[in-house]
Amino acid sequence: MKAELLYEGKAKKVYRAETATNQLVLSYKNDATAFNGKKKANFTGKGRLNNEISARIFPYLHENRIKSHFIQRLNETEQLVYETKIIPLEVVIRNLATGSLVKRLGIAEKTSFNPPLIELFYKNDDLDDPLINDDHALLLTDVSYAELNEIKAKALEINTALQELFQSIHLDLIDFKLEFGRLADGTIVLSDEISPDTCRLWDSHTKAKMDKDVFRQGIGDLIGVYEEILQRLEAR
Amino acid sequence: MKAELLYEGKAKKVYRAETATNQLVLSYKNDATAFNGKKKANFTGKGRLNNEISARIFPYLHENRIKSHFIQRLNETEQLVYETKIIPLEVVIRNLATGSLVKRLGIAEKTSFNPPLIELFYKNDDLDDPLINDDHALLLTDVSYAELNEIKAKALEINTALQELFQSIHLDLIDFKLEFGRLADGTIVLSDEISPDTCRLWDSHTKAKMDKDVFRQGIGDLIGVYEEILQRLEAR
Ligand SMILES: Nc1ncnc2c1ncn2[C@@H]1O[C@H](COP(=O)(O)OP(=O)(O)OP(=O)(O)O)[C@@H](O)[C@H]1O
Ligand SMILES: Nc1ncnc2c1ncn2[C@@H]1O[C@H](COP(=O)(O)OP(=O)(O)OP(=O)(O)O)[C@@H](O)[C@H]1O
Ligand SMILES: [Mg+2]
Ligand SMILES: [Mg+2]
Repeated sequence: MKAELLYEGKAKKVYRAETATNQLVLSYKNDATAFNGKKKANFTGKGRLNNEISARIFPYLHENRIKSHFIQRLNETEQLVYETKIIPLEVVIRNLATGSLVKRLGIAEKTSFNPPLIELFYKNDDLDDPLINDDHALLLTDVSYAELNEIKAKALEINTALQELFQSIHLDLIDFKLEFGRLADGTIVLSDEISPDTCRLWDSHTKAKMDKDVFRQGIGDLIGVYEEILQRLEAR
Repeated sequence: MKAELLYEGKAKKVYRAETATNQLVLSYKNDATAFNGKKKANFTGKGRLNNEISARIFPYLHENRIKSHFIQRLNETEQLVYETKIIPLEVVIRNLATGSLVKRLGIAEKTSFNPPLIELFYKNDDLDDPLINDDHALLLTDVSYAELNEIKAKALEINTALQELFQSIHLDLIDFKLEFGRLADGTIVLSDEISPDTCRLWDSHTKAKMDKDVFRQGIGDLIGVYEEILQRLEAR
């Protein structure tokens, strides 16, 4: 199914698909990194869990008329996607204040945002993914003003759809990160992954953290938590 | 002329004016600080120079229909201004890339911005004045969306006016920082100071730095440079 390795990221390997030149195989790895790669570990089963979880989330979004790069699950750890030219923006949507935002701006923990707060970070490891404003985004990427607004509107739609999905399995969607990319025809679609690595999810009842913060903060069994999310999605 | 000291900042003392309750006396100090107060020094004459320079810039802006807190020069180091409720935003306008922007975003030194780049920083010493986006500004201040856009439009007008002023005395306006505040009636006007402490100015011919970077970088005689700016303004 896969030909040459194009890129190895911190969480996935990216292969050219054998079947079609405009398709990629994303192979989810067991590596976990945090604090821009300063904290690292390997969790057996994490690649499979994130692949299985995201392979349920993207089709759910398709049902909600949100286009993405996702084509299909291939096996336990791999999925087939359309190749995109990734726009070097990390689009972060926050429903509740926590994490870096609280430290950076002194906003009280658990402040709720309505409308949700959108933040853009410049996806650049050498610069530690700095926060940017809209004008920076227009300078640093090839997106137009109109496209940037479309990306933000799309991110809010995705937030609404994901909140519904996660609410149905008793998880609060606190915040999450999206990446968008351009298909060969220039269309911008949701790319990369949506998983407990890229979303903050709190159990709706206990408010227990059920995402990568378990690893960031060293507060529990990451695999157990991800397994629980997959099970809740399967039981849905 | 001045009653009680209300606030002592890094560069100015702020007194309530004896004459009117809605007026303040800004007393420019000789202290220079850089890197959020980490580098400090005292330059005899700096308070006078920044007072004299800003006391020429604000009236020039008034002639160009840009309202500010400025009422009049009182003496060598002091000026009378309307009291405002300062909006905790540092509004930075950049015509040419240099300084923190280059380091933060990897944008090439001397990249020119047309339209000028506007950046907002949250004026909060404890947080080291972090960069913010528009949505943050709406959360962290009492300005409305419309007011934020007015502030930005006003900042661009001020940039155009200042570029003309400085061009006429052979200085390139590279970037600068503005603060806005609300008068008692709620109107937002330009406040604080405009001086070589808050503007990057390069000699148009030699491109020599003629602003606080001389102190930041330890590359010359700060007082000589500020004196030169005042002389050019006087000879205008
Ligand atoms: N459809 C796609 N087409 C092309 N590249 C993609 C696509 N989806 C995701 N990618 C990219 O695949 C790379 C590998 O993903 P991974 O998450 O491992 O990277 P990463 O190490 O996290 O890099 P970063 O920290 O910059 O996100 C990322 O650069 C991601 O942007
Ligand atoms: N018209 C005004 N009414 C009220 N306050 C004002 C006015 N103009 C300026 N100020 C405030 O006066 C204070 C003193 O100025 P100064 O530049 O010394 O402060 P500072 O130490 O630089 O503080 P910061 O680093 O936060 O700017 C600042 O907080 C400034 O915002
Ligand atoms: Mg990634
Ligand atoms: Mg100041």
